[in-house]
This record gives sequence, C-alpha cells and structure tokens, in this order.
Amino acid sequence: MEKVTRSPIAARGPADHEVRNQIVAAATEHFSRYGYEKTTVSDLARAIGFSKAYIYKFFESKQAIGEMICANCLHEIESDVRAAVEETDLPAEKLRRMFKVFTEASLRLFFRDRKLYDIAASAATENWQAVQAYEARVQKLLQDVLQEGRQTGDFERKTPLDEATAAIYLVMRPYLNPLLLQYNFDSADVAPAQLSSLVLRSLSP
Amino acid sequence: MEKVTRSPIAARGPADHEVRNQIVAAATEHFSRYGYEKTTVSDLARAIGFSKAYIYKFFESKQAIGEMICANCLHEIESDVRAAVEETDLPAEKLRRMFKVFTEASLRLFFRDRKLYDIAASAATENWQAVQAYEARVQKLLQDVLQEGRQTGDFERKTPLDEATAAIYLVMRPYLNPLLLQYNFDSADVAPAQLSSLVLRSLSP
Repeated sequence: MEKVTRSPIAARGPADHEVRNQIVAAATEHFSRYGYEKTTVSDLARAIGFSKAYIYKFFESKQAIGEMICANCLHEIESDVRAAVEETDLPAEKLRRMFKVFTEASLRLFFRDRKLYDIAASAATENWQAVQAYEARVQKLLQDVLQEGRQTGDFERKTPLDEATAAIYLVMRPYLNPLLLQYNFDSADVAPAQLSSLVLRSLSP
Repeated sequence: MEKVTRSPIAARGPADHEVRNQIVAAATEHFSRYGYEKTTVSDLARAIGFSKAYIYKFFESKQAIGEMICANCLHEIESDVRAAVEETDLPAEKLRRMFKVFTEASLRLFFRDRKLYDIAASAATENWQAVQAYEARVQKLLQDVLQEGRQTGDFERKTPLDEATAAIYLVMRPYLNPLLLQYNFDSADVAPAQLSSLVLRSLSP
C-alpha cells in the first residue's frame, strides 16, 4: 500500500489555514466514523493520507484538532441562536428563543452523531479553551438581552445585572452542556418553554 | 474455609424485616468497599456468610438489594430537607432551605463514598421505582410549600400551581439527581442561593 507523504516544503502551496481546514474536515469525517477517544494521530494520518509529521506541523496534538472541531460545532450552535434572537425586537421573545434554540441546536449537534458526542464530552469534561470561550460568549449574549430588556422597561432593574445573568445561566446550563444534556432528553421538549416562562416571571418589573 | 449456610427454616427465628435489614446493612458495607456494579450476589453471599439461596429468599435480585440501599439513602436526604423546612414558618425561607439542603445532603450521600455513588447512578439511569417515588415526593413537598406561600400571600397566584411546581422542579433537578450533580460540583456552593433567589423573584406577587 502506498503512503502519500507530503513534506513541510510541499505544504507551502496552499495557505496554512486551508490545510488546517482540510485536516479538520477529514478528521471530523474520520472521528464521526471511528470515534474520537479511540483514534490516535497515527490512525488519523494513515486514514487521511498525510504523514503524522505533517499533521503535527499544523496541530500540536489530537486534542488541538478536537478543539477545532468542537469550536466549529459550538460556533454553529451559537450562530443558530444569534440568528433566532436577532429576528425579534422583543426582549422577552429573545430570551424564549435563547432557551429553545440552544436546546434544539445542542441536541442536534451533540447527538446527531453519537461518535462526535465523544469530542463534546471530552471538551466539557476537560474544560477545553473552546468551551470556556463559548460559555463566556453565551453569558455575554444573555447579559446583552437582559440589559436591553431593562432599557426598554420590559425587565426589572433591582437585581444586580451580573447576579441575574449568572442565575439565568445556571438555569440554562443543563440544556447547553452536552454532559448534562444527555440526562435531560426526557424534559428537553417541554423544559425550554417552562424554564423561560419561569425566568420571565422572575424578570417582571 | 467453612461456609455458614442458613436454611430457610432456620430463618424463622428473627422476623423477616430484621433479616432483610441485616442483609442490607452487610451489602451496603460490602458495596461501599468493592463497588455495586462489579459485585455479584454470589460474591455478596460469600462475603457476608449467608448462602446465595438464603439471600434470594429475601431479595429477588441484586437490584432489589440496591433499591433498598438507594431508598434508605433517599429517605435520609428527604428527612434532612423536611427537618430544615419545618424549622421555619416563612414560605420563602422554606424554599431557600429546600435548594440548600437538597444540594448539601445529596452531595454528602451520593459522593461521600464514591463506590456507593455507583448505586445512585444505576438507580437514576435505570429509573428505579425508589427514584420515581422519591421524585414524586420531592415534587409534592415543593407544591405544598408553594401552596402555603400562596395562602399567606407571599407568592403570586396567577401561574397554575402545577406549572410553577414543574418549572421549579426542573431548576432544582440538577442538584438532586446524582448523574447531573456530578457535573455541578463547581457551582454547588453558590448555585442554591442564586437559584432560590431567582425562583423567589419569579414567585413575587
């Protein structure tokens, strides 16, 4: 069997970010078929026809590839949510959509392919940088929606903004985090509506 | 090595419930040392000096013993919570204590001994009868506290009582359920206070 080895010099052709994207796309395909935990960088290199050394030129470890896949997945969820939130001007409706779309998109992306769930689970367990950044952005989005609702007079202003944000984030978290979400399938269809109604009652001026 | 075999006839001495308690106590001790998942009824019989047939006279399976251990554990958590709730007459304070004591007692009982956590995790994963009964009792307690607060005028009465109960139960659940609680250690010290404050804001008349 012939092994295709591309040297670092040959790599000067396409831009680095293109090669990185190419590796990530091939790795996503491979992990989704054979699982993330069980695959080594050598397995991956063999499967996608690159040398191990060439992959290591772009990613320092398997986790670095996993981080990129995970970051793409989280960005996809986030952009679904942002799109849904931007479609309405009503702060209460924005909040309802956050609960609904975060749950639906997380279910779809983390669980449509049980093998890719491995990556999300490792990311959440080991608290990867991509996950930390995602959580910070979700909290910021939530805070912006609350702030807007305070300005329009839809939401109460007595509770410190950071306290309200932190508490609502705790309510949302079981439907965002894949490790928690796996135990919330039974309630995932009704929970977003029930919880957003409760949260909105807590925000009434 | 001599094996102590007690026949069903010899068992007529002590009352059945005493023997059951004796088996449960010995099994709790054994499981906490060697784990629940990995132990068979034969291992258990050998370790506690009863014949396997004798154990099967009282429990139809290992799970039946596990259910009893689990039920005892859940009753202990519940009685801690009920005691804390009964110490105060203020509905808001009752609710705060439910969040606080459920979290603390669950952390203590499910995780003081990592091996016993196995049983709680199996119970929650397989939705054992003891767990279903516990969840129903917790929801009833919550509903009673809400009802009381509505009668005293402390809580709003517009939201249907069952809807309010279901939503608050969803907020509490990640700190009650051992499968979820294991991923909430980081927030377990601040979450009960933050979440009960949010819930109380949602209940203001």
